[in-house]
Amino acid sequence: MSTIQETIHQMGRQARAAAYALAQLSSDEKNAILRAMAGAVRKRVPELLAANALDLAAGREKGLSSAMLDRLMLDEKRIEAMAAGIDQVATLEDPVGQVLDAWERPNGIRIEQIRVPIGTIGIIYESRPNVTADAAVLCFKTGNATILRGGSEAIHSNRAIAAALGEAGAPDHAIQLIPFTDRESVAVMSGMDRWLDLIIPRGGKGLIETVVSLARMPVIKHYDGICHLFVEAGADQEMAVDLTLNSKTHKCGVCNALETLLVQREIAAGFLPKVAAALRAKGVELRGCARTLGILPDAIPATEEDWGMEYLDLVLSIKLVDSLEEAVAHINHYGSHHTDVIVTRDEAVAERFLREVDSACVFHNVSTRFADGGEFGFGAEIGISTDKLHARGPMGLRELTSYQYRVRGNGQVRS
Amino acid sequence: MSTIQETIHQMGRQARAAAYALAQLSSDEKNAILRAMAGAVRKRVPELLAANALDLAAGREKGLSSAMLDRLMLDEKRIEAMAAGIDQVATLEDPVGQVLDAWERPNGIRIEQIRVPIGTIGIIYESRPNVTADAAVLCFKTGNATILRGGSEAIHSNRAIAAALGEAGAPDHAIQLIPFTDRESVAVMSGMDRWLDLIIPRGGKGLIETVVSLARMPVIKHYDGICHLFVEAGADQEMAVDLTLNSKTHKCGVCNALETLLVQREIAAGFLPKVAAALRAKGVELRGCARTLGILPDAIPATEEDWGMEYLDLVLSIKLVDSLEEAVAHINHYGSHHTDVIVTRDEAVAERFLREVDSACVFHNVSTRFADGGEFGFGAEIGISTDKLHARGPMGLRELTSYQYRVRGNGQVRS
Repeated sequence: MSTIQETIHQMGRQARAAAYALAQLSSDEKNAILRAMAGAVRKRVPELLAANALDLAAGREKGLSSAMLDRLMLDEKRIEAMAAGIDQVATLEDPVGQVLDAWERPNGIRIEQIRVPIGTIGIIYESRPNVTADAAVLCFKTGNATILRGGSEAIHSNRAIAAALGEAGAPDHAIQLIPFTDRESVAVMSGMDRWLDLIIPRGGKGLIETVVSLARMPVIKHYDGICHLFVEAGADQEMAVDLTLNSKTHKCGVCNALETLLVQREIAAGFLPKVAAALRAKGVELRGCARTLGILPDAIPATEEDWGMEYLDLVLSIKLVDSLEEAVAHINHYGSHHTDVIVTRDEAVAERFLREVDSACVFHNVSTRFADGGEFGFGAEIGISTDKLHARGPMGLRELTSYQYRVRGNGQVRS
Repeated sequence: MSTIQETIHQMGRQARAAAYALAQLSSDEKNAILRAMAGAVRKRVPELLAANALDLAAGREKGLSSAMLDRLMLDEKRIEAMAAGIDQVATLEDPVGQVLDAWERPNGIRIEQIRVPIGTIGIIYESRPNVTADAAVLCFKTGNATILRGGSEAIHSNRAIAAALGEAGAPDHAIQLIPFTDRESVAVMSGMDRWLDLIIPRGGKGLIETVVSLARMPVIKHYDGICHLFVEAGADQEMAVDLTLNSKTHKCGVCNALETLLVQREIAAGFLPKVAAALRAKGVELRGCARTLGILPDAIPATEEDWGMEYLDLVLSIKLVDSLEEAVAHINHYGSHHTDVIVTRDEAVAERFLREVDSACVFHNVSTRFADGGEFGFGAEIGISTDKLHARGPMGLRELTSYQYRVRGNGQVRS
């Protein structure tokens, strides 16, 4: 066993023990500790800034882009936002202990299905240090022990944040940060299904792919958002322009931003020039199918690859479709099953779209940008799952729990 | 690409298309097809018996044990039970379309969380041909397309069953049987996460381990049942004898059979001779810890390995514990988180046990044998999951579904 392996396995054993302690805490006890965590973060502003300065200096030396450096950067405002976020999680309803179902069998045994913590969760993430606090705190609130493995760029900041969280009275090893940032540590975590019940990779596609191919335990994946908006023949066209604009330009570097606009052929000649003008006024580059180019000759010809692209930029592909069927088939084939929208005044057509599109979020007359735990009212979000098992779409606290069957009887035996 | 790879990937594409068709069927349409499947099985008794005879002959030639041959064997009674099972699934409530949650946000968007099929499910199983019908039919009822990969011993029977199910009017490729039984086919299925949303291996630990290490998509695992029964100091000892006997001997080769008996020290001298006499009368071999041997000198000394053994046989390990804490710690450490029981008249102690034992099923004064989808009233069971994600414990139809968020608005944008 290498040192890395030995250390991480030891952390796994400790996490398991911590999970048993955490599962026995009441909501009040957990909330008090959460508020103490927020307090510890506020008290340690100087340490956090000093640690972050080390990361920033190393990042500049490594030649990180200014966008990367900005992601990495902590200032008093961001640290206060982190602390306020923790306080807010303390106010959320605790799903642990909820009775999901309860019934009695003819033989008198009483069955209860109760929400319980998952147990131990590994979080593997990249540059942003605030993930350390976000992820750890949501897992703590739901009674899970976490093992965090952040990126090398943020290692000093991550250590300082974990140290602050660790002095708030949580059970020992409830939140552990892996001291290594070698790639080996990802492989070791992915292999230790005895000690980790779940891994959540938060980061780029490469990281997720690596974890998926190595992991022996369940992985909740947050893959691309290749989101579509379909303007159906019966759409309110002014609304369709607004929704397209908001979905594409409100924030274009996120997974719930619009990537492909589908327009029903019979309204395209009237609609496309209007939406194109609005999009171009916001600096959006348009890439169209052949029929789109017939109406918008200045658009760039879209290639087959465009239909499967998550641009995360001010770029939009546009395709004309002949029917609802064609729109649905395009979305199910090229999309990433994240969030897709229909704009129409025809309720029956909208209902067919919602039923037939195989995506986590299917919207009628709503911007793609509402695919978000906060906008759903979850109060907190650990991510947007593109998986279909356990958690699909925006993940809140509920999705960080499992359940257990508690059965009470008076001596029943099977005959 | 090998022929096996090409064929299985083609089946995957077909399964995805079938899943979209299946998701649009009403419960009535699915139930009519299920009844037609039962009819087709009944109509094809001669073909099924002829195909099964080929498997049995090959099995005898290969020198399969009589237990293996019995698992493989179909007769008119077993075929009728298969058909009746399908008819029964048609009568169960369809979870697809259920509204799990619904709420409105202050901005007026209405969010519904709706049960939908998972999509496409791969089932990899070993000798028993009736799994072909069982698994396919439960997946079909919940609107999922299946790709089945059975063991080589049952290939003729499996083909005949799949052919019968296939002539009942289901959408094309809703149920597909892989024509290969090579090990390569398991690897190919495990790698095609584009076409399979879930894999369920049904069989021995070796098979599950293989799938777990290869699979890129979620796997629902049905690992061992190392089940415990803890006789607490406050137990009704007669009840404890009955529950021990039933849990161990009602059927000993199954995952919900008892493997380890824990007895609180202070009652051991009185209780152990009684329970030992009852167990030995049923032919159960007893293996005890050192303190047990002090009371039952004829028991075999248990080794460290015994505490982690799933005997699946008339063997029981017995350990004395000093306290509830010790019992819980032993179960959480050595058990398989499947099903564990406390026998006691002390409600408060029982509640602590139920809360602190980290298992899918925790029982108070009930035989382990009730950890079963049928006994829970699910009407059907696809297995007993030892996972904590998505499905834990007995899995019925609900656990073969996912969900989707359907959101309706009137032009809401984010600002």
